[in-house]
Amino acid sequence: MAGNTHGTLFRVTTFGESHGPALGCVVDGCPAGLVLDAADIQRDLDRRRPGATALGTTRKESDQVEVLSGLFDGRTLGTPLCLLVRNQDAVSRQYVPMRGLYRPSHADFTTDMKYGHRDWRGGGRSSARETVGRVAAGAVARKLLQVYGVEVIAWVDSVGQVDCTTVDPLSVTAAEVDRFEVRCPDEIAAAAMEKTIVAARKERDTVGGTITCVARGVPAGLGQPVFDKLEAALAAAMLSLPACKGFESGSGFRGATQYGSVHNDPFAVDKRGKVITTKNDSGGIQGGISNGMPIVIRAAFKPVATHFLPQTTVTVAPHTPVEFQATGRHDPCVLPRAVPIVEAMMCLVLIDHLLRSMVDKVDQPRYPSPHD
Amino acid sequence: MAGNTHGTLFRVTTFGESHGPALGCVVDGCPAGLVLDAADIQRDLDRRRPGATALGTTRKESDQVEVLSGLFDGRTLGTPLCLLVRNQDAVSRQYVPMRGLYRPSHADFTTDMKYGHRDWRGGGRSSARETVGRVAAGAVARKLLQVYGVEVIAWVDSVGQVDCTTVDPLSVTAAEVDRFEVRCPDEIAAAAMEKTIVAARKERDTVGGTITCVARGVPAGLGQPVFDKLEAALAAAMLSLPACKGFESGSGFRGATQYGSVHNDPFAVDKRGKVITTKNDSGGIQGGISNGMPIVIRAAFKPVATHFLPQTTVTVAPHTPVEFQATGRHDPCVLPRAVPIVEAMMCLVLIDHLLRSMVDKVDQPRYPSPHD
Amino acid sequence: MAGNTHGTLFRVTTFGESHGPALGCVVDGCPAGLVLDAADIQRDLDRRRPGATALGTTRKESDQVEVLSGLFDGRTLGTPLCLLVRNQDAVSRQYVPMRGLYRPSHADFTTDMKYGHRDWRGGGRSSARETVGRVAAGAVARKLLQVYGVEVIAWVDSVGQVDCTTVDPLSVTAAEVDRFEVRCPDEIAAAAMEKTIVAARKERDTVGGTITCVARGVPAGLGQPVFDKLEAALAAAMLSLPACKGFESGSGFRGATQYGSVHNDPFAVDKRGKVITTKNDSGGIQGGISNGMPIVIRAAFKPVATHFLPQTTVTVAPHTPVEFQATGRHDPCVLPRAVPIVEAMMCLVLIDHLLRSMVDKVDQPRYPSPHD
Amino acid sequence: MAGNTHGTLFRVTTFGESHGPALGCVVDGCPAGLVLDAADIQRDLDRRRPGATALGTTRKESDQVEVLSGLFDGRTLGTPLCLLVRNQDAVSRQYVPMRGLYRPSHADFTTDMKYGHRDWRGGGRSSARETVGRVAAGAVARKLLQVYGVEVIAWVDSVGQVDCTTVDPLSVTAAEVDRFEVRCPDEIAAAAMEKTIVAARKERDTVGGTITCVARGVPAGLGQPVFDKLEAALAAAMLSLPACKGFESGSGFRGATQYGSVHNDPFAVDKRGKVITTKNDSGGIQGGISNGMPIVIRAAFKPVATHFLPQTTVTVAPHTPVEFQATGRHDPCVLPRAVPIVEAMMCLVLIDHLLRSMVDKVDQPRYPSPHD
Repeated sequence: MAGNTHGTLFRVTTFGESHGPALGCVVDGCPAGLVLDAADIQRDLDRRRPGATALGTTRKESDQVEVLSGLFDGRTLGTPLCLLVRNQDAVSRQYVPMRGLYRPSHADFTTDMKYGHRDWRGGGRSSARETVGRVAAGAVARKLLQVYGVEVIAWVDSVGQVDCTTVDPLSVTAAEVDRFEVRCPDEIAAAAMEKTIVAARKERDTVGGTITCVARGVPAGLGQPVFDKLEAALAAAMLSLPACKGFESGSGFRGATQYGSVHNDPFAVDKRGKVITTKNDSGGIQGGISNGMPIVIRAAFKPVATHFLPQTTVTVAPHTPVEFQATGRHDPCVLPRAVPIVEAMMCLVLIDHLLRSMVDKVDQPRYPSPHD
Repeated sequence: MAGNTHGTLFRVTTFGESHGPALGCVVDGCPAGLVLDAADIQRDLDRRRPGATALGTTRKESDQVEVLSGLFDGRTLGTPLCLLVRNQDAVSRQYVPMRGLYRPSHADFTTDMKYGHRDWRGGGRSSARETVGRVAAGAVARKLLQVYGVEVIAWVDSVGQVDCTTVDPLSVTAAEVDRFEVRCPDEIAAAAMEKTIVAARKERDTVGGTITCVARGVPAGLGQPVFDKLEAALAAAMLSLPACKGFESGSGFRGATQYGSVHNDPFAVDKRGKVITTKNDSGGIQGGISNGMPIVIRAAFKPVATHFLPQTTVTVAPHTPVEFQATGRHDPCVLPRAVPIVEAMMCLVLIDHLLRSMVDKVDQPRYPSPHD
Repeated sequence: MAGNTHGTLFRVTTFGESHGPALGCVVDGCPAGLVLDAADIQRDLDRRRPGATALGTTRKESDQVEVLSGLFDGRTLGTPLCLLVRNQDAVSRQYVPMRGLYRPSHADFTTDMKYGHRDWRGGGRSSARETVGRVAAGAVARKLLQVYGVEVIAWVDSVGQVDCTTVDPLSVTAAEVDRFEVRCPDEIAAAAMEKTIVAARKERDTVGGTITCVARGVPAGLGQPVFDKLEAALAAAMLSLPACKGFESGSGFRGATQYGSVHNDPFAVDKRGKVITTKNDSGGIQGGISNGMPIVIRAAFKPVATHFLPQTTVTVAPHTPVEFQATGRHDPCVLPRAVPIVEAMMCLVLIDHLLRSMVDKVDQPRYPSPHD
Repeated sequence: MAGNTHGTLFRVTTFGESHGPALGCVVDGCPAGLVLDAADIQRDLDRRRPGATALGTTRKESDQVEVLSGLFDGRTLGTPLCLLVRNQDAVSRQYVPMRGLYRPSHADFTTDMKYGHRDWRGGGRSSARETVGRVAAGAVARKLLQVYGVEVIAWVDSVGQVDCTTVDPLSVTAAEVDRFEVRCPDEIAAAAMEKTIVAARKERDTVGGTITCVARGVPAGLGQPVFDKLEAALAAAMLSLPACKGFESGSGFRGATQYGSVHNDPFAVDKRGKVITTKNDSGGIQGGISNGMPIVIRAAFKPVATHFLPQTTVTVAPHTPVEFQATGRHDPCVLPRAVPIVEAMMCLVLIDHLLRSMVDKVDQPRYPSPHD
């Protein structure tokens, strides 16, 4: 109930504070027999690792994962996987000057209101560093999704005012995304985005942006028709990320301006006899259930709350107005590092719903077969 | 796991198909001692009732609620409330011509893929009629929220291309919302919206739109810092509604275009010594936890999938392309009737998180007190 | 969290008070495509119905079930089944004399302590009448278990001091159990039990007893190895029944007096090459997981708290000692009617764990196949 | 769903295999502000530690706990506590001779049937070593219960045929329990039990027994009236322990032999005006809800499955009958070390239900107050 667990059958519980001894997760519900290696997990952790690019924070963490349980002879046991990452480069003294005030648009004030006790070092539990556990778990989910032929790719489609609308969700590859540090596969847009981020950093400011994520190869039938629509699960997953303020599925807000005669996706039959839609404003989901077309969603991230310009706020006790300038190490733009995090959340949602779909009907061939 | 339950402490399970004998819900976890009357529930049901306005469907349902359990001597018992509404005006023969094909952008195809067995009458479980149970439960939640001084109001802020940006979330009243059938409190915008809907109906078409919802009086401290951020719960709640394709919290997608120095909400102290923010781009939520400012969210609804113009699709078995025109009774625009439904979901999320917050800390004065 | 839901994948929420308008349940998570008829449910309800035998209460309820949702064309839809039974013969005035005192060993006092508001008519929610919803849901579970070849049979194995140790769990049939009103399949023991019950009633007293329940045909592999051991789920299911105070799995308390060299069940191979145990002190469960042998459990029920002899207790407010004699209609012995209720709980536990086992391993032939 | 989590508000997920790198747990839902130290946890771990007494296994583990998260400045943060214990003295080669066969009454066979992949070293996840995580979590629960004045004490009340019926649940102390290695507070019985265990070990055999556990100071009102009766939760908690085969609450199986006129616990008013019962056959629970009297339960444990006498079983593949004698290090009797484990489970159940009770009613003084 304290909300540190994601999923129903594929359950992920993350733990850890930004400047505590360690972070990580327990994955409970991963089926037995999945071929898995620590390197599978390390790969995704490396993509979100701080200190890896010139665009991000200077905090340096190797983020080496240790698999403490659930794995034996190279395959999962069906028992909980505990995945651990030690903190190494936490510099808590940078936060001492700010511990007595509420940093604007951070969780300092709300955490105090809620718990009356707060780890002021690096944002504590509310730091984006918590996503280490999500990405580790997401890598396990991704490995399991691959067994069923599902592929998940995200990319930055806007930074500040720079939009990129040229990426084709049907064909974009992971390699194309990682080609540029900003993780936008369009060369021209990527350059403009990088310029925006570098300029923001130079101005001691931060900037927001958006990410699109596609899942290809998702079988039809995932998602539950009422409260656990696939879109509801995806929306919650994205809005559970630090700084996320918006979500769209398929046509999103654009669809709200349209007429039904324009918006509806006509069904057709492809050459192999499979039912498809001739366009995909549904974003691969109809009635909350996947229809076999690519799932396409979009998430909006506000600018990082820690910029280094003067700000006004109030002190903790007594509540007195005060001016301050933030210290510490922060990304000027969360978007590039958020790409693997968004992918992790998409993977966690899909694998959970894929497992849930296995009990949909009485007379069910194992669905979907890992060998199809 | 089949996803018909919402909430963790205040749990609502809805049941019922569009053309089955009845719909309703079981509310489990409503604290004992709440003063409640069937009329409290009827009031909200009447606001979503079909056949109530000239803008909506012609299906006529009285939607009279029966309280089957959980209530005794005018107060809740702490035991499950079963709230029942009988279907009265289902005309299933209107759906016979369409039972052998997949209506575009409906749940027919995905339901067949998932379950292999489908109630084709009126959309079955995927009909928006399912929200009867949600609104009934939401009315109980609203009653309980009132004990704590929380007020929830939604309104239509766009229909098709018509936007309304004049409504002040701080002051708008329920009476203002219900003044016009389209449930937009701005007279000029309301007139333009109604014109748009009437025109769409005349064209045998449908049209989408957006709804904004505000919650005032929410105490600081609701929401959990990781997967169950208040925004995550709200996003899931909205995306679980039929036809919803987008969600924004506070600045939403606009915030993604901004700089941190512009976006951050400065803290200040008001006259009574209470910590406030001088603007509210956070939408009342920071780090996933309410900060005491009004919670403001926005939801996008695509146009109703059933329009009455010719469409192409495929038949159920074998999959053959076919042209058809829909029959049955449908709203040309879901927005006006979606207003009480959006409010219901906001109420369900808030009451669940308010109850959850009661175990946040060891040394906790009853929080928030119903008598403050 | 208010504890009115049983199960994780096959979820049953019961509702209703003893003297309220209706009782029933919502079954969420029954897979689609199960052939089901109201008569399947009525059959089990008729076996627990009050007023059916000379050994039980004189309250007369027809307990006719109405299926309000989830069923279409004779098969389940995969959507929630709402099963409703109206109360018909509640005589609340019989409880008026007792509303101002706490009946000993009833839930009156604890309910007041917990909720501060109580339905004093017929025990309210704490009445064994609540099990109507369980039996209705259990009948659905039983139908689904039959698809997988699982059979569940319970019988009374003791009443007061009368024990019956002659019943063979491997071969006893449902018809044998129902041959005698007391639901003990041994003719001599049954006669002694009936005599004990009739004598207790004549003395205005009540008497306790025990029930054994066997499940045959359960595939190996059901149950989870840690907190959700199959025995843990069965123990919780039994102890959740009114008046149940004890539980044994396999050798139970007898096993605690033994040596390992005596208690261990040797494995062997039967003629068809299947691994079996040559005896069954494990009760079909090892390490919390079914091993393919019959599951055998036993539940102890204290005597019904309402007898009609003088008792001492205290009044509600102020707390003053008082003597009283109970009124109302009650069973002198709950055991015969508890047989279908125990079976229902066994069915609910098994089907939930059978569904859960379907996601145990990555490379899993549909397990167990409904066609094997 | 894979069953490695206990509780609903105070949620404990354990992880780890007997011979893997580490074991431990994540506690999610511990309220913020609890004064806690690693030493509080170490104390209970030391009581269950292997190698501590002459009566137990020779495996030597220091079982030093590391608190990886959730604790700051000596108080809990309200975020997940990850508690880690490294394995140090695992000797896996002792299990090599047995990896190709199914040890009788162990989980080898059922694990293979369920997962198709098994860690054969030391029983893997099914080893009682898993309870390290439970005891660590239970220590946190115990600390929190102390804030509310609740005290939990268990002791061995039988080993094999040796019974101890002299212990008074109202007055027995923890120091008395730990006075003898066998953890029975009666000197004469303790001596007889130790003799039984030593004799069993000498015979290369093992022996079972029972444990009684009492909770004193539990406020009235804990437990939910239907599926989550306090007794149901306690029964599940005990039956989730390795080797547990039976459970009694209050009068247990004895109560099933009695008449209502004998069994009912009369209510009375004590000198302070508090409602009590004059005897406690209810075991402190009525209608599934605590009544303020001491909660008394009893659990039966079968003899340890690994004895060192010859046994018959079958090999893994192909299934062939075989004789073998077990190797490895095992307790001849699990009872003494099970005492802190049983206490841990009692603590986990009580704290979960205590937190759940905080949302029972609308107009609820903080219940129970930590300062009363």
